[in-house]
Amino acid sequence: MTNQWKASTTKLCKAPLYNALTHYAGSDQRSFHVPGHKNGMIYTNVLKPIRGNDLFSSILQLDVTEISGTDDLHYPQGVIQEAQQLAAQCFGAEESHFLVGGSTVGNLALILTVCSHPGDIIIVQRNVHKSILHGLMMAGAKAVFLTPELDQASGLAVIPNLESIEVALKQYPTAKAVLLSSPNYYGMGKDLSGIADACHRYQIPLLVDEAHGAHYSQHHRFPISALAAGADGVVQSTHKMLAAMTMSAMLHVQGDLIARSLLKQRLTMVQSSSPSYPLMASLDLSRYLLDCYGEQIFTTGLEARDHFTDKLAENKRFDYLSFLDERYTQDPFKVVIYDLEGYLSGEVLQERLEHYGCVPEMSDDRYVVLVFSLGSTLEDSLRLLDALHQIAQEPLTVSVEDHQVNNVEQDKNQATIERTRSSEGTEDDHLSKKKSSVTLFHSNADSADQKINDHTEQHRDQATNQGKSINLDKDQSNEQNKYNISEPILFTMTPIDEENVEVVSLEQAEGRICAEMVIPYPPGIPILYAGEIIHSSVYDRLLTLRSHHHKIQGTADSTLNTLRVYK
Amino acid sequence: MTNQWKASTTKLCKAPLYNALTHYAGSDQRSFHVPGHKNGMIYTNVLKPIRGNDLFSSILQLDVTEISGTDDLHYPQGVIQEAQQLAAQCFGAEESHFLVGGSTVGNLALILTVCSHPGDIIIVQRNVHKSILHGLMMAGAKAVFLTPELDQASGLAVIPNLESIEVALKQYPTAKAVLLSSPNYYGMGKDLSGIADACHRYQIPLLVDEAHGAHYSQHHRFPISALAAGADGVVQSTHKMLAAMTMSAMLHVQGDLIARSLLKQRLTMVQSSSPSYPLMASLDLSRYLLDCYGEQIFTTGLEARDHFTDKLAENKRFDYLSFLDERYTQDPFKVVIYDLEGYLSGEVLQERLEHYGCVPEMSDDRYVVLVFSLGSTLEDSLRLLDALHQIAQEPLTVSVEDHQVNNVEQDKNQATIERTRSSEGTEDDHLSKKKSSVTLFHSNADSADQKINDHTEQHRDQATNQGKSINLDKDQSNEQNKYNISEPILFTMTPIDEENVEVVSLEQAEGRICAEMVIPYPPGIPILYAGEIIHSSVYDRLLTLRSHHHKIQGTADSTLNTLRVYK
Repeated sequence: MTNQWKASTTKLCKAPLYNALTHYAGSDQRSFHVPGHKNGMIYTNVLKPIRGNDLFSSILQLDVTEISGTDDLHYPQGVIQEAQQLAAQCFGAEESHFLVGGSTVGNLALILTVCSHPGDIIIVQRNVHKSILHGLMMAGAKAVFLTPELDQASGLAVIPNLESIEVALKQYPTAKAVLLSSPNYYGMGKDLSGIADACHRYQIPLLVDEAHGAHYSQHHRFPISALAAGADGVVQSTHKMLAAMTMSAMLHVQGDLIARSLLKQRLTMVQSSSPSYPLMASLDLSRYLLDCYGEQIFTTGLEARDHFTDKLAENKRFDYLSFLDERYTQDPFKVVIYDLEGYLSGEVLQERLEHYGCVPEMSDDRYVVLVFSLGSTLEDSLRLLDALHQIAQEPLTVSVEDHQVNNVEQDKNQATIERTRSSEGTEDDHLSKKKSSVTLFHSNADSADQKINDHTEQHRDQATNQGKSINLDKDQSNEQNKYNISEPILFTMTPIDEENVEVVSLEQAEGRICAEMVIPYPPGIPILYAGEIIHSSVYDRLLTLRSHHHKIQGTADSTLNTLRVYK
Repeated sequence: MTNQWKASTTKLCKAPLYNALTHYAGSDQRSFHVPGHKNGMIYTNVLKPIRGNDLFSSILQLDVTEISGTDDLHYPQGVIQEAQQLAAQCFGAEESHFLVGGSTVGNLALILTVCSHPGDIIIVQRNVHKSILHGLMMAGAKAVFLTPELDQASGLAVIPNLESIEVALKQYPTAKAVLLSSPNYYGMGKDLSGIADACHRYQIPLLVDEAHGAHYSQHHRFPISALAAGADGVVQSTHKMLAAMTMSAMLHVQGDLIARSLLKQRLTMVQSSSPSYPLMASLDLSRYLLDCYGEQIFTTGLEARDHFTDKLAENKRFDYLSFLDERYTQDPFKVVIYDLEGYLSGEVLQERLEHYGCVPEMSDDRYVVLVFSLGSTLEDSLRLLDALHQIAQEPLTVSVEDHQVNNVEQDKNQATIERTRSSEGTEDDHLSKKKSSVTLFHSNADSADQKINDHTEQHRDQATNQGKSINLDKDQSNEQNKYNISEPILFTMTPIDEENVEVVSLEQAEGRICAEMVIPYPPGIPILYAGEIIHSSVYDRLLTLRSHHHKIQGTADSTLNTLRVYK
């Protein structure tokens, strides 16, 4: 398949859904149906003359509903069916579903399909997007969590290794599926062929949240896609790394290990009965671009990316992570930069870049993630290089708050540099500077592991109360501990009993048991679950997040000044 | 509040979210974040020159994500928060939530909030949108179904009467909420004040799926809105009857009977973590139009509607339903027309209207529903009147299939006219012709009632198997039967066991037990549930739907040539 995708395929150079909408827009038909804006008439007649609002009126000509000729997303028989079949062919699936609710609904639908009965067991990577945890809750599933491996160069979590998956499959033969997220937010992933083979030996599907990899296998410089590696159910955020409108995604299926009619029913449950046609048309056009232009559609974007990384070498202050670990794959469109001096935190560097008109995707304590794509241009890279040059010239005077934070960073970095050197026995200054971030991230990763263990406790109690606890013999336990595989953790929709909860200031929260989820967004991965003990490592991280005004989801108080804990 | 909404309120004449997006679009900032289309660059540079595609590129400048200044739908603290507060003020709520997953996610979130524990009882109107049934399944709730009253003039189902709700509240004091749908697809509804008072006497919230009434209480000719009547949680499809993009809706809350923090958590579960900004901006602009122009925003649309209904009187062949029953309210923007001769079915009349370039909202055996709105113009009405004039001139020769169908219709009508006359004792020809549709619809309504009873059986068995059957004493049973109140019906996510199911041709399906839901869409209300006996009345309806190629959802075979039934 791969070679076919790479070439431009003229016979597939058509966009049936988009064409049907433009045909309707040009047909001068009168609307006596919803939507109420009547092909944008209200904006054209009322809003445009006053506000010069022409950003809306054009798209609204395509914002139709299920009328003759526009098909029905929930029961496609016409242009939507044809568009989805072209998508399946382009992305290497047997069946593709357009998603108007983002990868979120794709993850929900997959979990609700494979875990169709309460208590069904599923093997899940620990660091997953919150939509997967929500799917586990809705399904009433039991999750066996696997710890992801850490990339040695960056210290960033990637995915669980094959051995731990084999052990989990052996110990939980009734598991309904293995669910992984790859690539991660930093563009790091893995060829999943071996994992897919292992799942298929146990006759269960491999499900992959490939939200950040919609472009994979579409160009020889991109890593292999989950579908090409043999995954059975794959969710891709077409809007993230291809050309679709935000919230437009796809769910791809192949093989016979996923109940497809049930999957369709689940998709109907979690998706709007009035799906957006512009969003669906943007999925059709995104696939159209790949079929019409083949690899060439990425040329400009890759040249922009390469120009940036080449020229960044001339900047002595900032560098980007070049991942050396050959176990992993790296998305060339994700460039992760950081301050070689360790002076500017990722959050502060992001703020400085935005000051110069360059808006990054995300940042953490240490790194800033820059996303290039098929839409990136050389001008983007020149602006970015200029911004970093100017930031490098700025005096090292920052706000007291930032200064305190950076002192903390520096202390950590100093400590970790020492440890790195002694453990690695290298004196390479640049390398050790790079590694200065490693242990910092290791510590985060460790706390993440701790997090899940506490989460296990919480749910094990819950399971025990319901007489559903699972006992393993000693050998099993040892092997589980070796690979840090959790026991099955029951997820339910039942909320926390408010009578057992109180609100305390963050300063009082260390050592308490958290009663809400804490989710820094991006990347939307929980660092605390309800029922988890707030250990010092996590407590320190909460203080840092608050001081950097990082967006927090899941908490009643999104400022993190207070936290809900168990009495 | 009502008077305030009617006037133009200059101080509220602002659109904070839309303004933030246009500001960003004009800021020449460079995107190193998702979405991959980079403010539409890929369409502007690649697609537009080739396809003249300018319908997409403009809106994509607003298609951003959560970056500095654009706030976060799941934790609004900036422009989205301000836009939602303005919406709450405009629609008369204490708190409003923008929905990017349509009213579907609003219904799901409300049910998952009030029925937070499996087995929770909720009192629900029988003829509800499928998203409400999906919510019951996800919540594992038990539904006590109430039969809607029928409008005598049209025979169309509206909503349950106050008496039946009072009885249900008395017999099920542990019920968590009452959930109604009003207005119906034909624009018929009711002032819900009395029902709201009854719910509040029992300290439970009244939830209303007001998908078709987003414009209610915004003009003196529109009926009173559910919020103004005292409902606690209301879902409105802002895209249907106001100016929002399709799939954009709002969830309004007031009072203290709904757990608002849990509601927010449920919304985060069912909505995308990458919500569409154009959709959210269109909600902001829809409210903006109401605040800036007050009642005047509806003047053109109402004039168009009135011109159509006035002039339709000159057409002797077609008439529209003018609802006389004073118990109910009617949306002036919903005009329900039909063939006075009873010759053209609603489906065929819709097909003829589309032939002349007028696209209706929906049709059934008898009626065609025409939707006017604030976007409708006089030109629309003139085109529509001309189309109906031309259809009236057409020779009464139609396809064999249509002819057969119409004979069936006529036979039914003839039979029902007789019954109607004898029962009503009226000889008024026009009235009896109108009523010719009444009993037809009565029979549908009856089958709908039967449907739910069978559904009750199915779930009662299920409940019994789980030792959860509910026994009522004789008096209760009598009162329940009098008001046709179902026992609590358990909904679950557990799918049907495939081993007990077979596929048969529709001709073989009469009298069998259905093993899938059959949902004609529009209006998306199931006429068969899994576990329901396929009685002759429903069987006839299935034949008609198939012969008219009506869109069918829920079935494995959407052509209705085959049906899944229990062995």
